[in-house]
This record gives sequence, C-alpha cells and structure tokens, in this order.
Amino acid sequence: MFFKVKTSEEVLEILKGFNPVAEETVYVGDSLRRALSREILSGEDLPSFPRSSMDGYAVRAKDTFGASETLPAFLDLTGEVITGQTPLGSVSPGKAFRISTGGMMPEGADAVIMLEYCHSLDNRTIEVTRTVSPLENVIGAGDDIKKGAMIFNRGYVLRPQDVGLLAGLGIKDIRVFKRPRVGIISTGDEVVTINQAPQQGQVRDINSYTLSAFCMQSGAIPVSLGLCKDDFTSLRGMVSRGLESSDTLWISGGSSVGARDITVKVLESFKDMELLAHGISISPGKPTIIARIGSKAVFGLPGHVASAMVIAEIFLDPFLSRLSGEEWASGDNHFYIQAELARNIESASGRDDYIRVKLGKRDGRYFAEPIFGKSGLISTLVEAHGLVKIDRNTEGLYRGQTVDVMLFKSFKGAL
Amino acid sequence: MFFKVKTSEEVLEILKGFNPVAEETVYVGDSLRRALSREILSGEDLPSFPRSSMDGYAVRAKDTFGASETLPAFLDLTGEVITGQTPLGSVSPGKAFRISTGGMMPEGADAVIMLEYCHSLDNRTIEVTRTVSPLENVIGAGDDIKKGAMIFNRGYVLRPQDVGLLAGLGIKDIRVFKRPRVGIISTGDEVVTINQAPQQGQVRDINSYTLSAFCMQSGAIPVSLGLCKDDFTSLRGMVSRGLESSDTLWISGGSSVGARDITVKVLESFKDMELLAHGISISPGKPTIIARIGSKAVFGLPGHVASAMVIAEIFLDPFLSRLSGEEWASGDNHFYIQAELARNIESASGRDDYIRVKLGKRDGRYFAEPIFGKSGLISTLVEAHGLVKIDRNTEGLYRGQTVDVMLFKSFKGAL
Repeated sequence: MFFKVKTSEEVLEILKGFNPVAEETVYVGDSLRRALSREILSGEDLPSFPRSSMDGYAVRAKDTFGASETLPAFLDLTGEVITGQTPLGSVSPGKAFRISTGGMMPEGADAVIMLEYCHSLDNRTIEVTRTVSPLENVIGAGDDIKKGAMIFNRGYVLRPQDVGLLAGLGIKDIRVFKRPRVGIISTGDEVVTINQAPQQGQVRDINSYTLSAFCMQSGAIPVSLGLCKDDFTSLRGMVSRGLESSDTLWISGGSSVGARDITVKVLESFKDMELLAHGISISPGKPTIIARIGSKAVFGLPGHVASAMVIAEIFLDPFLSRLSGEEWASGDNHFYIQAELARNIESASGRDDYIRVKLGKRDGRYFAEPIFGKSGLISTLVEAHGLVKIDRNTEGLYRGQTVDVMLFKSFKGAL
Repeated sequence: MFFKVKTSEEVLEILKGFNPVAEETVYVGDSLRRALSREILSGEDLPSFPRSSMDGYAVRAKDTFGASETLPAFLDLTGEVITGQTPLGSVSPGKAFRISTGGMMPEGADAVIMLEYCHSLDNRTIEVTRTVSPLENVIGAGDDIKKGAMIFNRGYVLRPQDVGLLAGLGIKDIRVFKRPRVGIISTGDEVVTINQAPQQGQVRDINSYTLSAFCMQSGAIPVSLGLCKDDFTSLRGMVSRGLESSDTLWISGGSSVGARDITVKVLESFKDMELLAHGISISPGKPTIIARIGSKAVFGLPGHVASAMVIAEIFLDPFLSRLSGEEWASGDNHFYIQAELARNIESASGRDDYIRVKLGKRDGRYFAEPIFGKSGLISTLVEAHGLVKIDRNTEGLYRGQTVDVMLFKSFKGAL
C-alpha cells in the first residue's frame, strides 16, 4: 500500500477506469454544453420542402436562359407565394410567382431570380435581365440535413448552433449524461466556515469555495458536505454520507502528515476500497491520494490551495469531463499560449514541476513571469494566468526561452 | 437614415456607447464568472497570524545555526501547538514546540524546522541536523494578502481561485454587475414553435434557440419573447413589451426585404430612437440593423442563422461583455489557432468576409477547410469550429497559406 507514488501519466490512465454517470433527459433549450449519451439521427429532412433563399421570382430556370440587360426575357406573373403557406397553383412555362426569402417553392419552378434582376412592367409581366441556373437561390428539401443522417455522436458536447439544429428538427427531449455531483469535504482543525469569525489560530475555509467554483466551471455540481475536524470518526461519517450523495468525493485539507494518515485510514476502512495512488510525482500536488470505493473515485487533495488547484487543472478537469461523458475526456483540452520566460526556473528532476506564471504583453509578444511563493498562498494563484510544465527529465528553464503556457480553464483570452 | 452601412470597426465603436446594467449583490459562492461592479480591498491580513507551512518544530532560527548531520543542535521540547488554537506559552532560547502544517506560530519562535531534519531523542529533547533561516517554513501575517491591499479592480471577472480568496477574507456579499437580460424575438410568417407540427411551407424556430444558447454561453440571461409574424402591429407590441423586460433586444428573422422594412418602421415608431447602423459591411451578416431606443440597444439580426451567428460572435459577444461590466469588454477575446488553409477562398473587396471553417489535424498540424454553403443552412455552422476573416482589402486567400482561425466562443480546445 505504501509508496504507491504514481506519475502523471499513470494517474491519467487510472482515471480512465471510471465511467460516465447516468443518463437523463433535458429539454433542448437547456441542453447547451451537455454531452449526449446517445447518438442522434435526423428523423426528417431539413428543410422538409424546397425554399427560396432570396426575395424574387420563382421561375423555370430554362425560361431565363440567355436573358441579359440587352436581351431580357419576359415572364407572366401568375401567382404569389405567401410565406408559411403551400403555394396555390404551379409555375408553368413562361410564368413566374413572386416569392420572398423562406417561402416554399411552387410546383414547376426550379430556381429563384433575385428581385434586383427583374423589372415589373405592369402587374402581370416582369422583365428578366439575367440567367439563373436550376436550383439557384433555392434550398432543396434535405439540403441542410438529410433524413436518417447521423448528426451527433455519443459524447458530443452541444454548442449554441447544435442546440439550434436540434430545435429545427423538432428534437425536444435530449438524452444526455447527468452532470456529475462532486462531494467536497474541507478538513482541518484550524478551518472555520466563512460565517464564523475566526479566532486566533483559525482560518476561514478557502479550499471548498475554490474547488466548488472549479466544479461549476467544469459543468459539474458541487455538493458542499461541510467542514471536518482531523478526526477519524468525523471524517469517516462524512465520507460515508458523501459517497451516498455524490458521484465522486474530494477531501481537501490534511496537509499535515497526521491528517493525511487519517484520510488514508478512513478510506481503508471502507469495503471494496482500492488505493490507486498515494502521492503523485508532480510539484506542487505531490501529497495527493486517489482511491476507488465501490465505483466511485475519492480524492484526498493537498491542503495547500495552490497544490489542490494544480491537481484540479491537470487531473480533475479531465476526470470531470470523463464522468460527464464528454467525447474528448481522454485528452488535454487546455488552451496554450507561447510566451517568453521572464526568469530562470530551476527544477528538481524526477518529478514534473508546474510553475504558476503571470502573463504580460510587451511589443505584441507575450512573456511569462514565474510566480514563486508557497503553495499555501492563494494569492499566487490569483496572480497567475496559467502553468508552465517542466518535465521530470528537464533540470530547468532559462530566461528568454519560449515556453508553452497552459492557460487555466478559467482564462478568458483577454490580456 | 438610409444607407447607414457601417464598417465592423464603426459598429464596435458604436457598441461602446452602451453601459453596463445595474449592480446587485451575490453570495460569494455564486460569484464565479461575475464582473465586480466595485473594486475590492482587503479588510484584513491573510493569514491574520503567522502559521507554519510544514510539519515540524517551531524554533528560534538562531538556535539551529551551524547545525548539521555531524554536529547536531539539541533543543528542549517544551510545548506543542494545537492546530486551530493559540499556542500556550512561548519558545525561549534553546527550546522548541511541536507544530503541524497550518498551526499558529508560538511567541518567540521565528522558523519551523521540518520533521525530517529532527530526531526525537526522548520525550523532552530533539536533535536538529540542519540550519533553518528566520521565517523559513513560516507564512507571516499578511504574507498572502495585506490589509488594505487592492485585490480586484472594478470589472474584474472572478475565477475559482478568486472566489476562494474572497471566502478566505470573509467577504461574503459581492457587488457585481447584473447579468444582462436579452429579449429575443424570432420573426417570420413561416416560423412555428418547436411544440407545433410544421405544416407544408412552415419551419421550426431555429434562431431563438441558437441565440438563447449563445446568450447563456456569454453569461447573459435570454428572455424568449416568442414568435412574431412579419406584421407591424404584432412586432411593435412585442418590441414594446421586450424593452420593458430586457436590457437589450434581439430581433431575429426578417430576411426578406419586406420583413426588414417592417423592423425598421417598428423601431422608428419609438420615441427617443436613433438608428445607429442599417447594414454592416461584412459577409455574412450585412443586413443587420442596430438602433438605440432610450438607453437600450436593439438589434435586427439577419434571418439566416449562420449570418446571425457571425454577428453574434463578432459583435454581440463583446457587447454582452460590455453590458456585464467585464473589464476586457473593448477587446476581442476569442482564442485563435494557426492553421493551413485547405482550399483557395475568393472574396469580394469592400467588405470583411468571415468564412466558416472546419479544423482538422494531420501530422500534428492544423488545417482549416472552408465550408461553402448558404448562410441559411444551420449545418454549415454545426460543421464549423471557427471563422477565418478576409479583410476588406484582401481579394482572397490561397490554399496552403497559414491563417488565424478565430475559434467560436463555444470551442473547447479539443480536436
């Protein structure tokens, strides 16, 4: 059990062993950013009938062949398409119907000639000064989506236009993966809720707010289980309740060796428990514990908030993505930006170092300023825009070197 | 009034004329992604007392000077800090207190020597094999945040770690800008709700679902005002009601000239109305109308959904950012990716063209495949990952050329 220190790659592999949570049905208007639990096929043609994409006249293209400014064609205006209704009658040779954008093409017509290429001579005749090809300015039935076409895969995450397409096809009830519920326990004998006035020696709970907000950002539902003293019985009770109400459990705190030992003992006291990692070879974030209890992953996160957040960015975001059933869950989906390093950074070999950096822009170029500071300081995270990874086989990076900055998931692309 | 066609730059400038919506107070746990309406100063030191950042012994650093494996220092163990409590007594010369991570530093001690550099000889004496410097392994009062320090500017948008910091400082009630309410009207004689079975000639409402989801994505609150026929009286009534319940109004549809004319006439019928743009020199999206009625912006968006979405990406997202009071509202905060163009694209000069592109990856390099298709087709947006801009002074782009792809705001960084 001891010395089960894992590399980042091993941890990412371990987390692939967990499956998406259950399915549910949501209304299409509430389906933004949700991952589909089943593929979706189109049940009909979109549009279901041929439509005009312009204002003009529905004609037989053949009747306009050769028409030009100098040699116009003349057509009889014998009808008008009322938008939203089935056209009355059909367009026979030499005839035209007035039609607006979105109107249904009348029988017989195969093209629309735009208004600007026609002159109305009287109420019954138009002069056409341009040739149109068959299907020009027409959206055919099924041109947008064909009946039976596979529109979205299982795991596809819906964007605004995807929601629009589903609405257009009349698909109102969407089968999606549930948003995972993340039970969050903040531990520490010195920690009080933000509603209490801390006494000397006490501090307010930072971690559960940070981690809850991180869950929301990833589309998960945080379930704040409360604060817990560094005590076996209290923690075991809370973990037990948490496992019932959540899909995964995050225990934050326990930076002291004693507190960490309690967490491990609590986890080991559950039946069907497997300790998957006792330490990860990265910095910050090394003292992370990962266990499986039943089918659920339980994380013992470092008490130092910056360490916990590095673990969240690197492992918990893809893990939530996986629980949410998102198709890209196995990859890293951070945005990266190239920047010039503003200072040398040393790094111990044998572990991956993640350095918090603040980005700046000078003369149109980005530079990354490493933030050195204890990982217990939340301000180091507040100042930072992202992380620079120093691989375990690299001893350091030099000032002036170009580095890839992994932007925090919260980064909005504005500097 | 007529021919008030504006360039993109003019439109972005026009939109800067609108101000953020009102303020409100939110609970810190609900403040993620909200923009502060007032700057925030720290009312206290964080932490409010000096703490240990390691497990070990609180000592006077001076007592360890010169200590090494071969010449250890010996200290009397005279107390223990109980985490979360004020230490009893103080550390006098030659003495040490046991302390855990997060514990309050006892009086007299100025450093913590890590557990691994100490050996407990008996219950009363420890052997120290390493020198610690003053303040080593100690987080001083105010080391994280100093009392009175300006933490966040007005307009700052809160990330998970920022929420954590506010909680840590006990700042529970946060003054933020309200989320803007966007009234959405979908017009068109042929449009029916998704709850109706469309008859021949009718189509389901796609635009209001797409635009509503776009609003949610930008952090705004969509207010679906319903469908409206292309009719002056109905539209005027709906606009009038919409102006009462929303901070901005988006009228979508009216792709036909007749419908557009009705929209303009409706807007002009309001007192204190100013037509700001009647057309934008971009493609798709040219037939866009922007008006100010009172203090509110009203947009007449193109009926073709792909055109409306290009307008949304380029203008409405920064506009919502502005209404939300976000500090970066004046800039473009899209992410860009460099890709190789997979085909030639022609472009008419005199307008900015935004080409929908689908991204792919081959041999580690991104390539961008232009999607050609009528802007009335939602599938062209569903296939696309972003837009490539062809500047109005450029006549086209060539296959093989490297282009900057503006990724849709919905893009998740996974390919």
